[in-house]
Amino acid sequence: MLSPELEARLGELTDLHAAGALLGWDQQTMMPPAGGEARGNVMATLTTIAHERQTDDELGALLDAAEPAGETEQAIVRVARRDHDKARRVPAELAAEMERASSRAQEPWATARATNDFALFRPFLEANLELRRRYVECFDDAEHPYDTLMDNFEPGLTTARVREVFGQLREGLVPLVADIAAAEPAPVLPGPFPIAAQQELALELARAFGFDDGAWRMDLAVHPFAQSLSPQDIRVTARYKEEDLQGLFAVMHEVGHGLYEHQVDPALARTTLGTGVSLGIHESQSRLWENLVGRSEPFWRHWGPRLRERFPDGVGDLSDRDLLRAINVVEPTLIRVDADEVTYSLHVILRFELEVQMVEGTLAVKDLPEAWNAGMEDLLGIDVPDDTHGCLQDIHWSFGELGYFPTYAIGNIAAAQLWDAMGAALPDREAQVATGEYGAIRDWLREHVHAPGRTVEPTALLERVTGGGLDPAPLLAQLNAKYRGLYGI
Amino acid sequence: MLSPELEARLGELTDLHAAGALLGWDQQTMMPPAGGEARGNVMATLTTIAHERQTDDELGALLDAAEPAGETEQAIVRVARRDHDKARRVPAELAAEMERASSRAQEPWATARATNDFALFRPFLEANLELRRRYVECFDDAEHPYDTLMDNFEPGLTTARVREVFGQLREGLVPLVADIAAAEPAPVLPGPFPIAAQQELALELARAFGFDDGAWRMDLAVHPFAQSLSPQDIRVTARYKEEDLQGLFAVMHEVGHGLYEHQVDPALARTTLGTGVSLGIHESQSRLWENLVGRSEPFWRHWGPRLRERFPDGVGDLSDRDLLRAINVVEPTLIRVDADEVTYSLHVILRFELEVQMVEGTLAVKDLPEAWNAGMEDLLGIDVPDDTHGCLQDIHWSFGELGYFPTYAIGNIAAAQLWDAMGAALPDREAQVATGEYGAIRDWLREHVHAPGRTVEPTALLERVTGGGLDPAPLLAQLNAKYRGLYGI
Repeated sequence: MLSPELEARLGELTDLHAAGALLGWDQQTMMPPAGGEARGNVMATLTTIAHERQTDDELGALLDAAEPAGETEQAIVRVARRDHDKARRVPAELAAEMERASSRAQEPWATARATNDFALFRPFLEANLELRRRYVECFDDAEHPYDTLMDNFEPGLTTARVREVFGQLREGLVPLVADIAAAEPAPVLPGPFPIAAQQELALELARAFGFDDGAWRMDLAVHPFAQSLSPQDIRVTARYKEEDLQGLFAVMHEVGHGLYEHQVDPALARTTLGTGVSLGIHESQSRLWENLVGRSEPFWRHWGPRLRERFPDGVGDLSDRDLLRAINVVEPTLIRVDADEVTYSLHVILRFELEVQMVEGTLAVKDLPEAWNAGMEDLLGIDVPDDTHGCLQDIHWSFGELGYFPTYAIGNIAAAQLWDAMGAALPDREAQVATGEYGAIRDWLREHVHAPGRTVEPTALLERVTGGGLDPAPLLAQLNAKYRGLYGI
Repeated sequence: MLSPELEARLGELTDLHAAGALLGWDQQTMMPPAGGEARGNVMATLTTIAHERQTDDELGALLDAAEPAGETEQAIVRVARRDHDKARRVPAELAAEMERASSRAQEPWATARATNDFALFRPFLEANLELRRRYVECFDDAEHPYDTLMDNFEPGLTTARVREVFGQLREGLVPLVADIAAAEPAPVLPGPFPIAAQQELALELARAFGFDDGAWRMDLAVHPFAQSLSPQDIRVTARYKEEDLQGLFAVMHEVGHGLYEHQVDPALARTTLGTGVSLGIHESQSRLWENLVGRSEPFWRHWGPRLRERFPDGVGDLSDRDLLRAINVVEPTLIRVDADEVTYSLHVILRFELEVQMVEGTLAVKDLPEAWNAGMEDLLGIDVPDDTHGCLQDIHWSFGELGYFPTYAIGNIAAAQLWDAMGAALPDREAQVATGEYGAIRDWLREHVHAPGRTVEPTALLERVTGGGLDPAPLLAQLNAKYRGLYGI
């Protein structure tokens, strides 16, 4: 039995996290523009208080004295102990300086990106990098300094293992992309897709996936995201353009994130374990719904007619097969967030490689644009015209968030592995998807991936469900099968 | 100069208050229904942390050591000291028990109201009352136990003074209401008023009053309210019915509250003084915009044609004068929140008298329904058919919020006093209102009422602006002049 005092402490940390989540969600969806300055203060205060509570001696003492009974309680104490120890390793002054530097870099980054002026952003990125080096030094037991950074997003995964996995992925993807580039181009959806009708269809889709009006919201935001305030208060956001259906796929993606949080075991509420276990596993859930469900042939057997009905002009006279091909167009492009299912991971691999070199000290920030452009040529075979469409495109480095990017590709890999495992358990999955039925998929994911929350480590989770570790083979097999078919190559 | 440590402490208290304000606003406007349970925990945690910080020894020591320079800093230290001392007088266990009892009473109150079953609510009200008695005992220096309760909402006002003022108000209002009741009834607006058009008009009105799209929001909520997250993040809520224009007046009311918060001196940000000074002064601002501006003849000279344009059926063939009379109908009714400008304060006086008796121990909770009904007969001359439309109608007692009700009538009184003082300074006010111009009114209120925030005590503020204390004479004079004119009596 855990003591009521320990339970109260963990509940308080959960609550502070939820309050911060609401402040963040509101800032991106509801807050009037002039509210930003005060909001920054409120968020900083809650972060400071959460850090104080997280590192408090009393919490450590309660964890020392805990006598957990059963697996769940053992996991609670283990994870809470790790969170506590990790937070205590970082001096408050360094944590605060990291926050300040990240905040200071926002405007220069935005200006640099808008004006294609890398030199403007460079000193801020150098400062962020230097602070990450000092952060890494607080954890002297890591094999590689980048391990320490990645551990905040994907606990347990090493740089060495990611290098290996990404190497295999790269080797498999590059020729596939080249073959597709040489094939006949896929048809294009003529458009337009009036936004009001997209919103209606998105809500219909979201509800079919598991969006529950009593426990979810959907709002507009400049950058789509999902936020969980509790398993019964899930907020996804969307953004639509008239020209294409990207907004619809973004909704499927965010609903995938939302379902993970929604289906965590309610018994984990207020334990700090009632949330997603890592960013990679989280991304596997969003990618699974967006790509493996939402871009599949059986999915469009059901939704194709509904799409045509709502957007007769938008779909035009494309055949069912051409509609599917248009939805699955593959093309090397400059911008990661717009990339397709096949090229996406190559954008991530580039960032991973550059980050590791910067952290190792083998790549100076001043040489980043050149290295970026060379990498894009190598990986995707395209020229980068300017840094705005190159190394300045992502916001992550302005926050100093190194070690985050790999989780996007890990998500793709893990999604494919989980999808195969699920397929073995649900032999009629394809038929269900073809009739718009997702209950069995949702239930399987709840039982095997969502319900455990943070009680099972990401690597252990994958091992338990798929019988192995992170492995790019299923993803490569799926992509090859699907796209060689679609492109007739 | 205040020390940076003290400033940081006060900033933190401001931030925690803002976070709580967002949690409350979101709960009433955005939160999916199933999110309520987790939200209760998050709010309780923030309340507990704010109470800890508010009562912290360190804060007391910093206030002891403070060397304030100038009036503002002196006010900051004086008010922060008072907040700190007051919070410390109440044992944490009692504060927590008050929270729990209040939370426990919500559902029984709602059920009791829905089923007209006072006996169900009675033990919860008794518990709330008993806890307020214990609370009062923590402040042994008050003249009257009810003073202590009122002090949380209207600092500095005594029960003796309110008794006197409400006595005068009652004496002036009862005959006016009786005369109106005997006069020819006012015409009725035929309606309906389609809600979408009301929303448009409400926003137009709000913007004319000072609602600024860059710093405000307007949303729907079951009970209209205003919430300030910072002077640059003001949120008002509205609710409309097709049958009448109450929703429009509620918007004017809430915008009045919002303007107060919006126009507080920005220099007071994060000092804990950058907000309204008392509920009575706050209510004076909402009532001023709703009644003294929004229900006035010159106001409708400008907005009448606009109303007719949007609602040709709703206004029907009422003449301008009949439209004004319909908007200013006076009638004794059962429900406070639906009451008109004249009878409203009588509803408040009833609650004040009953609360004082309950706190003094001269009225037992079990005898409340009978006393309520007798009071309604005395004050408004109407029969109360059941407790649902009687003593169970308001939510306040279920929260245990005794001492709050008087501020509603104090707001009416203060609004009239401030209105007279403003009139002397702005001789062409009526002409401006008649052309839809409110800039001079807004500016006068900023300078004399809003900007000081909590730096000037409510009684001192009234004294400074009007040259006297709380005085019902201006309100009675205004109501008599206006309504004897409208009703031809």
